[in-house]
Amino acid sequence: MRNFKVTMAYNGAAYHGFQRQNNAMTVQQAVEEAMGKLLGETVSVNGCSRTDAGVHAREYVFSFSTENAITEKGVVIGTNSLLPGDISILDCKVVDDSFHARYNCKGKEYEYLIHNHPVRDPFLNKMAMQYKYPLDEKLLDREGKQFVGTYDFRGFCSADCTQENTVRTISSFSAERQGDLVRLKVAGNGFLYNMVRIMVGTLIYINEGKLPQGCIKELIEKKDRTAAGVTVPPDGLYLNKVYY
Amino acid sequence: MRNFKVTMAYNGAAYHGFQRQNNAMTVQQAVEEAMGKLLGETVSVNGCSRTDAGVHAREYVFSFSTENAITEKGVVIGTNSLLPGDISILDCKVVDDSFHARYNCKGKEYEYLIHNHPVRDPFLNKMAMQYKYPLDEKLLDREGKQFVGTYDFRGFCSADCTQENTVRTISSFSAERQGDLVRLKVAGNGFLYNMVRIMVGTLIYINEGKLPQGCIKELIEKKDRTAAGVTVPPDGLYLNKVYY
Repeated sequence: MRNFKVTMAYNGAAYHGFQRQNNAMTVQQAVEEAMGKLLGETVSVNGCSRTDAGVHAREYVFSFSTENAITEKGVVIGTNSLLPGDISILDCKVVDDSFHARYNCKGKEYEYLIHNHPVRDPFLNKMAMQYKYPLDEKLLDREGKQFVGTYDFRGFCSADCTQENTVRTISSFSAERQGDLVRLKVAGNGFLYNMVRIMVGTLIYINEGKLPQGCIKELIEKKDRTAAGVTVPPDGLYLNKVYY
Repeated sequence: MRNFKVTMAYNGAAYHGFQRQNNAMTVQQAVEEAMGKLLGETVSVNGCSRTDAGVHAREYVFSFSTENAITEKGVVIGTNSLLPGDISILDCKVVDDSFHARYNCKGKEYEYLIHNHPVRDPFLNKMAMQYKYPLDEKLLDREGKQFVGTYDFRGFCSADCTQENTVRTISSFSAERQGDLVRLKVAGNGFLYNMVRIMVGTLIYINEGKLPQGCIKELIEKKDRTAAGVTVPPDGLYLNKVYY
């Protein structure tokens, strides 16, 4: 039995998230079916994270084990030839038997992409959130940096959040503009259900004056989901990096 | 009766081209249905061009007439609110009654986008042609400039081409690289069926040594489709600009 660490990217627009579901197509199912055909056996992969329906990944890591003698390169080329064009295997390495993509994950970076323009761009359909009104990326950058630190983020987790321990460490936050695109990046040791999307929605509320500047530490202390901003759509969310 | 000139952009991945068909969804049908709902009447639009299934447009022009008193801005905002996210109305202007998007069109610029990388990018799925092998954009630029001039392009038209007059004037050609993306741009007074895709396929044959450098004038003179290169996929083709 050899254990493999696989890195992939996917456009999540057509998928109901990573994790297998009974009645909807997911990235996990697409990957397990492709690898199952390639290896001639039932393949079951361990993903680094759940992602919501419509969320994308520039770097997603999963692990799997097989008795098959296939090479690392064979996994990449063979799986890609059987996957649809919106999922791509980028790399594959044999790793120690103890490696598990989720349990060994030390942290992640997410990006939230906003198309800040009054007219929608059909080439960013399902790949960014369109925001029609003025957006001050310097304000977003300054306010968002208040998330950095180790806090109980219970107030930044959807009501159906099932995690018992809601303490997380956010290590960095930045907001940058490139023309009409505003990129918000946040890295941390872990994220609660919908946490990034609620963080972004809260910053947009601050930009709109619906919440006051400098309120984020106070919002965190409240531990009350209803005090924070909206949950922005999944379209703009990308899992960017996974740290081990 | 007022006559309107409308500019739009669309991601053609989900459509069987611009022009209405009986059994497949097209951009024209999507637009006419949205405008029909907006204006409460049957709308019929005149497009500047047919485009093939899967081909995109950064700038596409159509014209239509209505007795409705709607404003120019009302057409833009109202139609966009009823269209799917992969089509966007960019602009609308009242024009002279004699204006017709196709008959008045003086020329067009197309772009063909190539993702030149051994690993496919899931975010360019259906939005570029992936080409895995080395591609010399300087060679493509030099060879492609041989297309510039007024010629009978019968040999660069699909077998089912129905145009009687196959003489066209190509006014410019360029190939440029931006990282892994190679952009081929070609402008002219008109294009035959599949003409840009056969031009690009021929340049790729020259890049691969399947056709000799400097052969394009000779290929044009042959007027024989089988002498030119392959028809590359529609995924990478964008109607970029329409001239009046």
